[in-house]
Amino acid sequence: MTTTFKLHPQLRADCHLLGCFELSLVLLNRNAALPWFILVPRTDATDLLDLDVGDRKLAIDESARVSAYVKSELAFPKVNFAAIGNVVPQLHLHIIGRKPGDTCWPSPVWGHLEDSVSYEANRRVSMATDLVQRYGMRGAEGLD
Amino acid sequence: MTTTFKLHPQLRADCHLLGCFELSLVLLNRNAALPWFILVPRTDATDLLDLDVGDRKLAIDESARVSAYVKSELAFPKVNFAAIGNVVPQLHLHIIGRKPGDTCWPSPVWGHLEDSVSYEANRRVSMATDLVQRYGMRGAEGLD
Repeated sequence: MTTTFKLHPQLRADCHLLGCFELSLVLLNRNAALPWFILVPRTDATDLLDLDVGDRKLAIDESARVSAYVKSELAFPKVNFAAIGNVVPQLHLHIIGRKPGDTCWPSPVWGHLEDSVSYEANRRVSMATDLVQRYGMRGAEGLD
Repeated sequence: MTTTFKLHPQLRADCHLLGCFELSLVLLNRNAALPWFILVPRTDATDLLDLDVGDRKLAIDESARVSAYVKSELAFPKVNFAAIGNVVPQLHLHIIGRKPGDTCWPSPVWGHLEDSVSYEANRRVSMATDLVQRYGMRGAEGLD
């Protein structure tokens, strides 16, 4: 983990900050059309597969926790997982709940997710609470 | 690893089979516009983050080897990594070399990569040879 880490302003603008795991910040895309989480490992590396083995394991384990939440609690049978970063260079991992017939199925979300629905504040709080209580996330207090 | 594993016919049709690692088959997308590798872990799981910890580590380690090849030998500075599988349900991992100004930069390749260029046979052989000699891949003999 770097001490100079600062969340990229584009990710901050596009997402709600829900909390963090040991390595990664946990963001929720503001577009509520699908459950679209973004994990941001606190590192200077820009590609997932360039992380050293320890950080790579942490990043993947933390992603798997969010994926388990999406499947178990939000009842999405499928999770798309990706590290792209062609536009925002800071390493960030997409974890997106999908189901047949969803708003842009079967296309990937990037460039295809047009519905823009906002989260109610209490919905976001309840999602963050679930992640804290059952999936080991720490809350966002002190992260901003 | 399952003993009943069979490569999905759509992946077989879209790709060249280059070889395998311990867990995954190594495929090369026939569209040579970008170096687009696809790893297919020999498992019944359909989502990367659902793999058990051992297989998940293998799949990621094997992906990192291909990524290192793309960066070091093919000189692409960026690698997009994704497990989507909304169309072809068999688990497969995309490892795609990208660079600013490439044929669909900065868009993700899915739905945006229109150029279709074929690989020369000797180019494919040389790529597979490099992967065997320097990145621990086994050749494709006996896999078909």
